[in-house]
Amino acid sequence: MGIDPGVARVGWAAVEERNGKQKALAYACITTDKFSALPDRLLLIHESLVQLIKKYRPDCVAVEDLFFATNAKTAIAVGQARGVILLACAQAKIPVVSYTPLGIKLAITGNGKAEKNQVQRMVTRLLHLKEIPTPDDTADALAIALTHAYSYKMKGKL
Amino acid sequence: MGIDPGVARVGWAAVEERNGKQKALAYACITTDKFSALPDRLLLIHESLVQLIKKYRPDCVAVEDLFFATNAKTAIAVGQARGVILLACAQAKIPVVSYTPLGIKLAITGNGKAEKNQVQRMVTRLLHLKEIPTPDDTADALAIALTHAYSYKMKGKL
Repeated sequence: MGIDPGVARVGWAAVEERNGKQKALAYACITTDKFSALPDRLLLIHESLVQLIKKYRPDCVAVEDLFFATNAKTAIAVGQARGVILLACAQAKIPVVSYTPLGIKLAITGNGKAEKNQVQRMVTRLLHLKEIPTPDDTADALAIALTHAYSYKMKGKL
Repeated sequence: MGIDPGVARVGWAAVEERNGKQKALAYACITTDKFSALPDRLLLIHESLVQLIKKYRPDCVAVEDLFFATNAKTAIAVGQARGVILLACAQAKIPVVSYTPLGIKLAITGNGKAEKNQVQRMVTRLLHLKEIPTPDDTADALAIALTHAYSYKMKGKL
């Protein structure tokens, strides 16, 4: 399962690997109401994640690493969402791995400086989807899940 | 209840107000093992908070506002801890308020530019404690709880 964390939107993607082939089982975006209080938005994210983990029982959850956020205000906001996501994983005893934006671009396109749109087109092609998933957060979650599918094989993990 | 969030240490303080007087019921610091995985550290913080909320049943939880963190790396780390703390409050349906470091210094010492040590000495005096609480995180949590005790009266809230 790949997750792109945020307070307003959390992209998620359940990707299955069988016989070396990846298939997107389901993917979407959890959206929280900007007029709700922050604790309630985090509660919605946590509860949604708990349900998704229960439903898809992932072997591993891959989350985007955000130590490269542009400013402290964004970083703390996204950090709060990331915190409740990691908590849901720990509560379900599911291992978590992190990938940097650079690592994701590199794994999907072979180019660490690839544009967002290029990554999205590759994800769409690699998973044989009919169109580029929207919003960006959902497409990013698919890219993260795929990155992990490629990476754990390289490292011989899981 | 006042909380100073962090991944390594979470300071907490339960302060009671009766007849306009504040009394520290209990205060301490939740410490997480730096060799543990981040999701497990967040799990420990969340579980500890859930227990503390259950035990002290606070009317309100006051958390330090961290939008002023010095860099993105610190901000995201602290943000993750803050996320699971706010979640524990939302799950228990307890309102959360935030105070900036400036607001806390101002409420406790009357000087927004007060030194850390000056704030700690005032907290110790205001709550009639025998000595300055340690570590800093615990003292900060008491300062945050006291700030809320003073502030909600000014605003006529609760």
